[in-house]
Amino acid sequence: MGLSVTLLTGGVGGSKLALGFYRIPACELTAIANTGDDIVMHGLHVSPDPDILMYTLAGVVNPATGWGFRDETFTVAKGLAGYGRETWFQLGDRDFATHIHRTAMLSSGATLSQAIEAIRRSLDISARVLPMSDDAVVTMLDTNEGIMHLQEYFVRYRCEPVVRAITFEGVSDAKPAPGVIEAIADADLVVIAPSNPLISIGPILAVPGIRGALRRRREQVVSVCPLVAGKSLKGPTDKMMAQLGYGVSPAAVATMYGDFCGTIILDPADAGACAEVEAVRMRAAVLPTVMQTQEDKVRLAQSIMDRFA
Amino acid sequence: MGLSVTLLTGGVGGSKLALGFYRIPACELTAIANTGDDIVMHGLHVSPDPDILMYTLAGVVNPATGWGFRDETFTVAKGLAGYGRETWFQLGDRDFATHIHRTAMLSSGATLSQAIEAIRRSLDISARVLPMSDDAVVTMLDTNEGIMHLQEYFVRYRCEPVVRAITFEGVSDAKPAPGVIEAIADADLVVIAPSNPLISIGPILAVPGIRGALRRRREQVVSVCPLVAGKSLKGPTDKMMAQLGYGVSPAAVATMYGDFCGTIILDPADAGACAEVEAVRMRAAVLPTVMQTQEDKVRLAQSIMDRFA
Repeated sequence: MGLSVTLLTGGVGGSKLALGFYRIPACELTAIANTGDDIVMHGLHVSPDPDILMYTLAGVVNPATGWGFRDETFTVAKGLAGYGRETWFQLGDRDFATHIHRTAMLSSGATLSQAIEAIRRSLDISARVLPMSDDAVVTMLDTNEGIMHLQEYFVRYRCEPVVRAITFEGVSDAKPAPGVIEAIADADLVVIAPSNPLISIGPILAVPGIRGALRRRREQVVSVCPLVAGKSLKGPTDKMMAQLGYGVSPAAVATMYGDFCGTIILDPADAGACAEVEAVRMRAAVLPTVMQTQEDKVRLAQSIMDRFA
Repeated sequence: MGLSVTLLTGGVGGSKLALGFYRIPACELTAIANTGDDIVMHGLHVSPDPDILMYTLAGVVNPATGWGFRDETFTVAKGLAGYGRETWFQLGDRDFATHIHRTAMLSSGATLSQAIEAIRRSLDISARVLPMSDDAVVTMLDTNEGIMHLQEYFVRYRCEPVVRAITFEGVSDAKPAPGVIEAIADADLVVIAPSNPLISIGPILAVPGIRGALRRRREQVVSVCPLVAGKSLKGPTDKMMAQLGYGVSPAAVATMYGDFCGTIILDPADAGACAEVEAVRMRAAVLPTVMQTQEDKVRLAQSIMDRFA
């Protein structure tokens, strides 16, 4: 019997840690993915975070970017550009098959969970993959350039606008997807990936019922700090935390997670911040959190299991 | 000022003649395409006949098949097959862009006419291209293998089932697309392409109002016989006419078209059938109707304009 680990994750960064757990035979992984980034492009339902996660676990992800398929071609995208369609969110041909399949399933009455489950099986992934919710939750950013979808901020505007506020549209009516609450309640260990606390983990926490379920497991919940030496491991986490007034420190993350998370893992570069974290009543542990190689990912996952499960 | 020609057409065969007219500078072509073949595949609205027509006129059609884009790749189709989706109706990557664009436009409230018009402009086609109707009409065949969509009969079962009856579902509620009636009423010449009378021209004629509009122009309506020496120019026309009891002869076609078409053009191979055609009160004219080269297409189109416009 293995140890069950439930991981809450966003996109590229979190998927690295997911892969670490997935590669450990003794780990039974359930990954709960943010779907606040989901967007309808060209009439197709695109689920960036679940797809990044599944492509990563299946070993088909583009290693250069961390998203999309490796060795992709862009014939469909070029055709759509020729028809005058928006091109800022470029999708590869193999990736289009995923979006077409998911959209066709949704149109036929399937839930997002069912569509993700079908893709997971086809990609021969043995871990469980759950969306945070089957209901639409849309992360919208209020910025100095106007209100925009998270993907517009990320892809179209390259994280350049100044963020003033974040809204998860539809979240108050959203229910956790089937299995999400149980995966949190029953896991030996619940891990919060080093994804952006505001726009990757934040939407998951905002789904009614999920934060409460985590609070009931506070002693078994461990987060990996997404900041190393005051900077994001990936993406605009540092910038967004500063712009929204949270501060950019492990203690700031600890403050955001303290009610449901007993321990935060800091990189050795931040060992000096342990006292600060403990001052906000969360335990701090120090482990190397920078995941560059496959070995880094497995080592971090294994260390988390050894120390906390 | 050119001569205006309105062509009623199905897929590959009719598009050859359309290209012939299109290449004549003095011809102002309006093509009215059958949409009874339209099918939803993988949630996408596929319009085989309008697409074949437009790809042919734009010069991007696959010359080996007469449909799809030349130099196509099939990455999306392979991905969809990997997800367990039906593979009998294979679509190329560049072609998928067309279906995604059209479906996205329809989902946003555009009509099929508007979607076709957008594709036509993007492909830089100067002829007018009209669907027979913006309303759904679905050609269903009752066969010895069961009731099936025309595309299933054609593509999946390679025209092998025996056809007992043809139904155009939805046609009684369908309206001619904007411009169709005017294009028939106002043209200097109306041409019925050598497409299958039963399942390519038949659905167009079945849209309420179209056959009546043609009858009012009977003296200006010319059809090109889709049979040469007792065989189809292309596809299962001969077989279907026999199976449905029409007989397989120019006179049989003349009988089907006689109420709205003043003249039928026979290939020299069928010059002997002129008397038979005239016996059913249609004029017969003899012109080479087999179009293999580009020159054949232009020559036939030019001869039709010279003789009948």
